Amino acid sequence: MPVTLKDVALRAGVSRSAVSRAFTPGASVSAKTRAKVERAARELGYAPSALASALSTGRTKLIGLVSNNFHNPVFLEVFDRFTRGLQERGLRPLLVNLSDETDAAQSVRMLRQYSVDAVIVASSTLPPDFALAYREAGLAVVHSFGRCEQHPVVPVVGIDNAACGRMAAQTLAARGYRRVAFLGGPESATSTQDRLAGFRDGWPGAPPPARFASAYSFAAGRAEMQRLLREGPPAEAYFCGDDVLSLGALSALRDAGYDVPGDVGVIGLNDMEMAGWAGFDLTTIRQPVGAIIAASIDLALMLAEDPAMQPETRLFPCTLIERATLRPLPAAAP
Amino acid sequence: MPVTLKDVALRAGVSRSAVSRAFTPGASVSAKTRAKVERAARELGYAPSALASALSTGRTKLIGLVSNNFHNPVFLEVFDRFTRGLQERGLRPLLVNLSDETDAAQSVRMLRQYSVDAVIVASSTLPPDFALAYREAGLAVVHSFGRCEQHPVVPVVGIDNAACGRMAAQTLAARGYRRVAFLGGPESATSTQDRLAGFRDGWPGAPPPARFASAYSFAAGRAEMQRLLREGPPAEAYFCGDDVLSLGALSALRDAGYDVPGDVGVIGLNDMEMAGWAGFDLTTIRQPVGAIIAASIDLALMLAEDPAMQPETRLFPCTLIERATLRPLPAAAP
Repeated sequence: MPVTLKDVALRAGVSRSAVSRAFTPGASVSAKTRAKVERAARELGYAPSALASALSTGRTKLIGLVSNNFHNPVFLEVFDRFTRGLQERGLRPLLVNLSDETDAAQSVRMLRQYSVDAVIVASSTLPPDFALAYREAGLAVVHSFGRCEQHPVVPVVGIDNAACGRMAAQTLAARGYRRVAFLGGPESATSTQDRLAGFRDGWPGAPPPARFASAYSFAAGRAEMQRLLREGPPAEAYFCGDDVLSLGALSALRDAGYDVPGDVGVIGLNDMEMAGWAGFDLTTIRQPVGAIIAASIDLALMLAEDPAMQPETRLFPCTLIERATLRPLPAAAP
Repeated sequence: MPVTLKDVALRAGVSRSAVSRAFTPGASVSAKTRAKVERAARELGYAPSALASALSTGRTKLIGLVSNNFHNPVFLEVFDRFTRGLQERGLRPLLVNLSDETDAAQSVRMLRQYSVDAVIVASSTLPPDFALAYREAGLAVVHSFGRCEQHPVVPVVGIDNAACGRMAAQTLAARGYRRVAFLGGPESATSTQDRLAGFRDGWPGAPPPARFASAYSFAAGRAEMQRLLREGPPAEAYFCGDDVLSLGALSALRDAGYDVPGDVGVIGLNDMEMAGWAGFDLTTIRQPVGAIIAASIDLALMLAEDPAMQPETRLFPCTLIERATLRPLPAAAP
């Protein structure tokens, strides 16, 4: 059994409160008592636990990660990076599952009860009100994969979704596609709105039509593409809201007898591990998840130290990852 | 800013220690002081945080989930079930990432520092020494997806892997396959060993040959099947160690021009969400992940209450999920 504060108190012949004060920087305790406590602690091999240290510092070293989509495999990478990043810093990663949660007040109560030092909202579908509500409740909060804004109220780390949309448009235009379309995630998500706006902005012709899946999931991407195909022939190429939607759309296209990229092109966004699996070989736009999570942790810790810190937006560049779901670039003229 | 214990102490005109004692069941505090504290707390809307409550009860309400594989999509379901299950009980889910960790002593130190009330080791590849080391360090620990034993030292929740192996053998035999083989996970994993033993035990002919992938991952399953195919023609059907290995093996078979199930049959294990995706349609043996995680949480909490509790093994039945990667059962004779 681990040595407890009580054991130290008994051995030192002082109260538990005295032991606690002896380990609390700045607390009132006599030199004599402190010496007794330190000797007893040494003899027993006692080290204050994270709990004891939380007591004295007011910091729990718990950092919450709020997620609301456990059906998108990109989150495996998010969870991996988040847990490793905190462990390396001696912090503790707490996972908060807000699937189906629509009430920010409810999750404020939960996060308060969880006693986290800081919160990272890792979601492009939770409305910005959630992060705002957490901040108003006095929590240090960073929004990862949130909307980039010039003057954010809550620090945001992510990508410029509109720029990614433009990159998708230019990629399709350069490969000679003419009739293109957008198949996005939920229409209410800022990521969907911004990717579409950038896509239309970067497209040289008339604004491409847009459709929206009900969630960032395989099932939703597949269902929306099936609906599209029942209405008529597909576009020549689709910019899909993200990789998991792309995989759902691909499966619907192939089931309906369309060859990808022979008949229809597909480009995704994220470059999750699975996008590179043989059989998918998805051409996509890479969102640097590892760098985004690392920067989110840094900002969350800075904010926990200094709640008055000026909120900033940190954006990371995206890159095109060419695989096998778009036709190749035409050969350059000689 | 949230109301703190200090605010309550100031308003009640008592010491912080008195406020803490007033909220500690059984602690020594006068009726007069308790009344003052309770009035001040009511007036300020103060509720003791999880931290304050941990102080008085010695329980942090933190439950650790130890995982070492963030490349297997089945863990998305594990994380989803674990976080929901704890949230519903007012507990806090802490994620511990032991990827590439081989030293149990190192993770004992980490878990101690994390101050968890209990630990669930969710892994079929971490050696049993890890759970044993945690128990010896005085932690309440349950091994999910661990090896079933008659007299376990650490409670185990999972499936009877040997029985699943027999189910796979019977399923393949009933469909008329003759030359079958096993493509398992790491040879050192108890899940691999037991699934293979059951598969050989349940197979009516000579013991089927076995090969082992280096990890439960898509890349490892694909690489091992590619090696197999370089050595000669494939078996008629494979029992793969789990679903993600199956998907890797499927992709290698199809790339090499084999039709599944026309030329080669594949059966997996887990029935992770992705196994049912159109395009995979993997025939598999369902491991009831939700029930296993729920029972693991129950056992971990019981053990935290009563460290002397007799460890038990709780096994859940598996079921065959027929999709499209095995040939159909032959029609019954008239």
